[in-house]
Amino acid sequence: MRMVDLINKKKNGEFLSGEEINYIVRGYTEGQIPDYQMSAFLMAVCLKGMNREEISSLTSAFVDSGERVDLSQIEGVKVDKHSSGGVGDKVSIALIPICACIGIPVAKMSGRGLGHTGGTIDKLEAIPGFKTSLSRDEFISNVNRYKMAIVGQSPSLTPADKKIYALRDVTATVDSIPLIASSIMSKKIAAGADAIVLDVKVGSGAFMKSLPHARELASTMVDIGKSLGRKTVAIITDMSQPLGYEVGNANEVREVISLLKGEGAEDLTVTTLTIASYMAVLGGAFTDFDTAYRAAADILKSGRAVDKLKEFVTIQGGRAETIDNPGMLSQAEFHIAIESVRQGYVSSIDAESIGVSSMLLGAGRRSKEDGIDYSAGITMLKKIGDKVDKGERLCILHTNMEDTKQAEEKARNSFCLSSSAPAPIKHIHEVIQ
Amino acid sequence: MRMVDLINKKKNGEFLSGEEINYIVRGYTEGQIPDYQMSAFLMAVCLKGMNREEISSLTSAFVDSGERVDLSQIEGVKVDKHSSGGVGDKVSIALIPICACIGIPVAKMSGRGLGHTGGTIDKLEAIPGFKTSLSRDEFISNVNRYKMAIVGQSPSLTPADKKIYALRDVTATVDSIPLIASSIMSKKIAAGADAIVLDVKVGSGAFMKSLPHARELASTMVDIGKSLGRKTVAIITDMSQPLGYEVGNANEVREVISLLKGEGAEDLTVTTLTIASYMAVLGGAFTDFDTAYRAAADILKSGRAVDKLKEFVTIQGGRAETIDNPGMLSQAEFHIAIESVRQGYVSSIDAESIGVSSMLLGAGRRSKEDGIDYSAGITMLKKIGDKVDKGERLCILHTNMEDTKQAEEKARNSFCLSSSAPAPIKHIHEVIQ
Repeated sequence: MRMVDLINKKKNGEFLSGEEINYIVRGYTEGQIPDYQMSAFLMAVCLKGMNREEISSLTSAFVDSGERVDLSQIEGVKVDKHSSGGVGDKVSIALIPICACIGIPVAKMSGRGLGHTGGTIDKLEAIPGFKTSLSRDEFISNVNRYKMAIVGQSPSLTPADKKIYALRDVTATVDSIPLIASSIMSKKIAAGADAIVLDVKVGSGAFMKSLPHARELASTMVDIGKSLGRKTVAIITDMSQPLGYEVGNANEVREVISLLKGEGAEDLTVTTLTIASYMAVLGGAFTDFDTAYRAAADILKSGRAVDKLKEFVTIQGGRAETIDNPGMLSQAEFHIAIESVRQGYVSSIDAESIGVSSMLLGAGRRSKEDGIDYSAGITMLKKIGDKVDKGERLCILHTNMEDTKQAEEKARNSFCLSSSAPAPIKHIHEVIQ
Repeated sequence: MRMVDLINKKKNGEFLSGEEINYIVRGYTEGQIPDYQMSAFLMAVCLKGMNREEISSLTSAFVDSGERVDLSQIEGVKVDKHSSGGVGDKVSIALIPICACIGIPVAKMSGRGLGHTGGTIDKLEAIPGFKTSLSRDEFISNVNRYKMAIVGQSPSLTPADKKIYALRDVTATVDSIPLIASSIMSKKIAAGADAIVLDVKVGSGAFMKSLPHARELASTMVDIGKSLGRKTVAIITDMSQPLGYEVGNANEVREVISLLKGEGAEDLTVTTLTIASYMAVLGGAFTDFDTAYRAAADILKSGRAVDKLKEFVTIQGGRAETIDNPGMLSQAEFHIAIESVRQGYVSSIDAESIGVSSMLLGAGRRSKEDGIDYSAGITMLKKIGDKVDKGERLCILHTNMEDTKQAEEKARNSFCLSSSAPAPIKHIHEVIQ
């Protein structure tokens, strides 16, 4: 087998066998296939696509390239959840105590944020003392005992995907559904998931800007999951504006606390409960979605979820009193209000711009080496459909930086106003299973 | 400007400005842009194409990447000729004395062969003593005095194209008309041509297997030439079988001698005279094609072309008596006849297979480092349309090798026979100017 012939095959729109895909992934990971051949191949994949068999083979090859987490010592169905990434997306944090209350084991492996989207690990580390560097035994025993534990992503999982992703990033080959889907699914499978709930975000703050694209990514991932023997559901949720009202790290933790008390914003609450319910059904706790949803909503009302969050923070080494006193979370020095220059209804919000603005304020990383400021971020005061008077505040920027001109401009330009109220936004667009 | 953004632009099918193309070519040649970004870009070009402005910019960028041959000391219009490559294509050699007889200066820079097609320099070096390493002054003075001189391709011309070609070869990005056209045209322009006649071959032995593809390559190159101020004509000639009867090096020289005596095969004679006539018109020796063609044909009949060939061999250091005694050219030890297993008409010949067979016999190079055997090659005895009896010889293989099994099989399988005579083949398919 010669790589140049396989590149040519894909360039001509032909399909590759599992053996051929294995040859490519293994050869590249082990260094026999050079970067320049791989990048030509990746561009051919971007422009010619892959069929479902090829995508499954690619996913398996990624999984096989590294270690696999063995969760067999954990009782029950291990349901994992993945979000394709959004702004103000704190759902993963809220799901941990909710699912633990329902009784399905949450053995979570999460990543840090990069660019305009935040990472679950970063947000949790805004809680004083919170640690994600558990040993394997601590992790397993916490899940068995408390039904929940979280660790940072292991560098030994899917090394092929990591090496290929780094190359895609510099060769304009990121936006390919086969490559995105296999990358996501391989990480979940290598991390030991029996079942997977995918939150595919769509809209201005998401990677997928349109519903047809989001649908294609969702159905591709569901097909991969099924073909590799994992129960998989994809929920297409709205990201045409930040989810909830808070964007950042400490302030997103604050919003999660409100949500778990049953006082969350409607979009955030509906999205969280919907995902939690599908996880509960796949985990075998309920047989139908509606019953699961009602049970999850009851958990919020009862206050049990907040108690479970405190327990979670404690077992991860964090100070549980923070949950009762969110004022203990770090606070920024400066608070800058962005005011509306005219009257009208908020017709759209460029959520990606809000994410970038938050990053510029210190809440996110431009490159992997950057540190982050837990207290920085943005509080949305107006969302799509809200009526705004001239001079009324649209959002507040929180930061410790002195020069915030660029962040202010980004935030201000994120809001579009119209003279009449826009159509209401659906929180859940579609469910693919 | 960032390379990743330019790759993305091309991936999305957008057009690049001249400035952007210069940035890419210069950055890659100077080593700031790595191979892996260039190969992703080249794959995007293969699959998304380039418009005529982009192709012209690319050609200019290739020319500007290296030295340019200054032919200003040569009197008259310098007309160059390029063949897209075929099997048994000895036309370039024949054109030198014919054009010199007509009086247009032939300042030729030629290459060596690789793969299934031979190179003009290799073929001429089959003549004892023939040298192509003239100094610049010798080259110029020979053209001014004798109207003809040939040198090997200078490594200092179009280094960008050379570096990119090497990358294309290993990344399955060779077959792109914008990349092929700019590569060819940049070499001709850097070599100092005022006017260019392009012999675009079409058929089983050519790079372009179909007429629409050949037409696209031809018209692309004609457009590049015009946009860069060079009179350019492209002639689409037949390569559905080897040109003439001889394939190899010494035996192709023998066939050129016959041709120049007016005893050439019809396809070879017509193709040579057609190209010579367009060169004569572009060079200003004649105002119309038909007059030029009659004059060129008369040169063959008169015997002047053979005398001019002897002069040419002499000034390049070769032994001119070889032309009168072609038996002095090296002869192979073994001669293997390939016989027909059945009766019928030759309906097609896989010319590329004949070329590969000849290469396997020692006449060509598999890789750049290989040496060649001037005496090796193939003599075609039957061509398309010829009637063949069972057991009759189709061709003869000449070689000094003992193991010729693979070459024999290739040659045998090149011939297809049918029970009725096929339609006659056109030698000249189209002229694009």
